[in-house]
Amino acid sequence: MPKLITTRTRIADLGRPRVIVIGGGFGGLEVVKGLRGFKTQVVLFDKYNHHTFQPLLYQVATSGLETNSIVAPFRKLFGKQDDFYFRLGEVKTIHPDENYIETSIGGVKYDYLVIATGAVTNFYGMSEVEKNASSMKNIVDATKLRNKIIRQLEYALLAEDLEVMNSLMDFVIVGGGPTGVELAGALTELKKNVFPMDYKELDMRQMDIHLIEASPRLLNGMSEQAGKKALEFLTDMGVKVHLNAAVKSYDGYEVILSSGERLISRSLIWAAGVKGNPVAGIAPELIARGNRIMVDEFNRVKGYSNIFAIGDVALLDGDVKFPKGHPMMAPPAQQQGRLVARNIRNIILKKPLKPFRYFDKGSMATIGRHKAVVDMKGVRFQGFFAWYVWMFVHLMSIVGFRNKVFTFFSWMWNYFSYDRSNRLIIGRNEEKINHEELNKQPV
Amino acid sequence: MPKLITTRTRIADLGRPRVIVIGGGFGGLEVVKGLRGFKTQVVLFDKYNHHTFQPLLYQVATSGLETNSIVAPFRKLFGKQDDFYFRLGEVKTIHPDENYIETSIGGVKYDYLVIATGAVTNFYGMSEVEKNASSMKNIVDATKLRNKIIRQLEYALLAEDLEVMNSLMDFVIVGGGPTGVELAGALTELKKNVFPMDYKELDMRQMDIHLIEASPRLLNGMSEQAGKKALEFLTDMGVKVHLNAAVKSYDGYEVILSSGERLISRSLIWAAGVKGNPVAGIAPELIARGNRIMVDEFNRVKGYSNIFAIGDVALLDGDVKFPKGHPMMAPPAQQQGRLVARNIRNIILKKPLKPFRYFDKGSMATIGRHKAVVDMKGVRFQGFFAWYVWMFVHLMSIVGFRNKVFTFFSWMWNYFSYDRSNRLIIGRNEEKINHEELNKQPV
Repeated sequence: MPKLITTRTRIADLGRPRVIVIGGGFGGLEVVKGLRGFKTQVVLFDKYNHHTFQPLLYQVATSGLETNSIVAPFRKLFGKQDDFYFRLGEVKTIHPDENYIETSIGGVKYDYLVIATGAVTNFYGMSEVEKNASSMKNIVDATKLRNKIIRQLEYALLAEDLEVMNSLMDFVIVGGGPTGVELAGALTELKKNVFPMDYKELDMRQMDIHLIEASPRLLNGMSEQAGKKALEFLTDMGVKVHLNAAVKSYDGYEVILSSGERLISRSLIWAAGVKGNPVAGIAPELIARGNRIMVDEFNRVKGYSNIFAIGDVALLDGDVKFPKGHPMMAPPAQQQGRLVARNIRNIILKKPLKPFRYFDKGSMATIGRHKAVVDMKGVRFQGFFAWYVWMFVHLMSIVGFRNKVFTFFSWMWNYFSYDRSNRLIIGRNEEKINHEELNKQPV
Repeated sequence: MPKLITTRTRIADLGRPRVIVIGGGFGGLEVVKGLRGFKTQVVLFDKYNHHTFQPLLYQVATSGLETNSIVAPFRKLFGKQDDFYFRLGEVKTIHPDENYIETSIGGVKYDYLVIATGAVTNFYGMSEVEKNASSMKNIVDATKLRNKIIRQLEYALLAEDLEVMNSLMDFVIVGGGPTGVELAGALTELKKNVFPMDYKELDMRQMDIHLIEASPRLLNGMSEQAGKKALEFLTDMGVKVHLNAAVKSYDGYEVILSSGERLISRSLIWAAGVKGNPVAGIAPELIARGNRIMVDEFNRVKGYSNIFAIGDVALLDGDVKFPKGHPMMAPPAQQQGRLVARNIRNIILKKPLKPFRYFDKGSMATIGRHKAVVDMKGVRFQGFFAWYVWMFVHLMSIVGFRNKVFTFFSWMWNYFSYDRSNRLIIGRNEEKINHEELNKQPV
C-alpha cells in the first residue's frame, strides 16, 4: 500500500466518518445534500469544478443558452455546508479492500464510498466514428459543437461545388432518443429562424438535417404515442428521419447506413447511446451490461458493505420492473443519491436499510416551439401545453437559483425574438480556414 | 497579381463601390453602421465572428460576467443591413497600389479600404515575460485567465510548503492603467467576498495582489486627483501598489522588479501596454511610434486617397493636442469610424471631406463596489456616485440590447449577493494537476 498523503490534501480529520463521493452529477449532488447537517465528513471529487445540467447541453450546442446558465460551481453549491470538502481531481483507482482511493492529487481513506461517475458516450467499438463524430456529454463538447455548427455555415459560403457545400450544410444526428430528437428540433429552428438572415448568400433549402435511429421508432424510452408524435413534429419541420437505420461507417465526410444509403456530411453528431463509466479497481465480474456496476437493492456494490454506486454507472439487480437496469437519466440517479445518503445515516445510526424503489415520474422531450411530448403517470399529452410543462419542469430542475433566473430570461428572449444570440465561435483558433483543403473532397 | 477569387467568396457585385473594413472592433462597427442605407457595398473581415466589448474583459476574467454578455455576433448586428457581407477570415496582406487584399479565404478587390485592426499586447520585446504572463486582449484570453485564477486556488490547497502555496495565491498585475486598476480591484473583491467561503482551508491573508506601475502614479491618462484616489482605494482594499517599478524579468515563478525587489507568483498578468496591429502591406515608413499607421486629418493613410486607418492602429498627424496620437481607447476609434463613414459618403457624393476633431468625453475607471473615479469635462468626482456613473455609461455602451439586459442582471445579482457565480474552470483539460510537479520549485 502506497503512502497515504491525506495531509497534503488538507482534509481535516474531525473524527467523523468520511464519505467520499466520486462525481458531482445528479446523483452525487443528492448524496452531498442528503448528508448535510449529519455527523459525517463529505468529500466530493470531480474532474470539473462545476456541476453540469446535462439535459440542456443541446441548447448550448445550438446557441440557445449560454454556457454559464447550465453549470454551477460545487463550491458555490456547498460552500456553507459544514465539514464538506471539494477536491478537483481525477480518481485513478479505488482500493475496495483497503478503504482508500488513489487520485491525481494523492491517496485518501474513506469510511463510505459512493461511486457516481455517470456515463460516457458509447460508440459501440466503432473507432472511426468516434474519431470523426461530435458528441455531447459535457460543456466543452457542447461548446465545441456550437463552434462547429456555426463554422460550417461560414465555410459553406466559400465552397465551390455543390457537394462540398452540402457536406458543410448537412447535419447527421445519430440516435432517436431525447438528445437526438431535441438536437434535431433545435437545429431546424436555427435553419428556419436564424440562418436565413445570417447567411443570405446560401440557399437554406440545401441544408438537410438527418436523424438516424436503429429501431423502428423514436423515443424508445417513452410511449408509442410520444414516439409517433415526435416523428410527426420532426417530419413536419423538415427533418429527414431514417428509422431502422444504423450507421455502418463515417470517415468525416461520408456516412454509410446499414441500408446501403450514403449521406454526405462533415458533421455527424453521435447521440446513439451511453455506457457506464466505472472507476478502476472494481472487480471485472462486478461490471455488468452497459458497463454498469452491479449493486444490490440498497445500491451497495456487490460484496461490499461500505461502497455504493448510483445513477448511470449502477445496475440494480432485482428490480423486476427494470431487469435491464433503470433508465440512464437524472431521476433514478437523484432518487438513488437521496436513498444512499439516507442509508449511510441509517448504517451509522444502526437502523435498518431501506431498499430502492424507483418512482417513475415520467419523461418528456421537446422538439421545437410549442412542440413537446410528455408521458406522465396515467396521462400523456403532446404539443403546446406539453411544451410549457417541459420548460417549467426543466427550469425548476436546473441547479442554482441564478441559473434558473438566467435561463428563464434567455428562453423568454428566444421566444419573443425568434433569435439565438449565442451563435458564437469562441475558442482557440486552431481550425484555420484552408480554402484549398476545404474544397478538396476526401478521396 | 494573383488570380482574384472573389467569386469564391460569394460577394455579389451590384455595381456599387465596395468598402472593405478590416476588424470589427469599436471603430470598425461605426464604419459599417455609418454606411447603412448608402449606395456602397460593405464587406467586414474579422478573424472572430463577433465583436468583443473589451472594457469588460476584466469582469469575465474575474468571474463577474459570463462570456456571452460582452460579445455580439456580427451577423446578428448587421444581418438586416442591405448589401453587407461578413467574412470570417484573416487578412494576410493588402496591396494598396492594386486595390485588393489577400485573405485566408482568397483575394478581394476594394474601392475603399478601412484598416481597423486595433492593438495587441505590447511586451516591449521581453519574450520571457510574454511566454510566461497572462494577457487580456480577447475573450479567449479572458476565459483562460479566469480558469487560471480559479485553478491556482484549487492547487494552493495542495501545496506542501508556504512559498509554493504563496506562489499560487499571489497575483502580480503589471500596469497601472484602467485595466490593471480594475483587475486589481476585482481580484480583491473575489479575495474578500468569494474565496474565504470557497477555500476555508486556506488562510486568505496569504493571498497578495500586487499592482506594478513604472511611472510615479496610477491612471496616467486621467487627472492627478483620479490617480491619487485610485491609489487610496486600492491601498485601503489591501492591494500592494508598487509605483516607479518596472518588471525586469519573469520566469513563470519569480518576478524581478527594477528596484531589485523579488516577488514570487505563478500568475503575472500583463496590462502594461498595447501597440498597434497594422496589416502587412503597409510601407514601413508609414508605421510610426507605437506601431501605428500614420494618417492625415481625414484618417487617410499617408499617400493614399482610398485607404483609411482608424482607432488604436492609427496615428493622426497634426492634432496639436495629441502629438503622440489619440488615446488607444474606444471613443477615438468610434469617432474616427463615424467620420470615415461620413467621408467615404462625401467622396462618393463629391463633397468636401471633414477633418477629425477628437471630442474628449473624459474617462473613468472602477476599483470596486461604490468605488470609481470619473474625469469629465470640467467635473471630476470619485466614490459612490462615480461608481454608478461608470456602470451606467458602460451598460449603455455594451453592444447589443440583449447584452445590456443580461449584464444589468448580472451586476444586480453580484451587487446584492456579493457573489460571483461564474467562477468556473471550463476548457480543455490539458492542464492536469501534477502533484509532484506542483510542489517542485523551479530551479
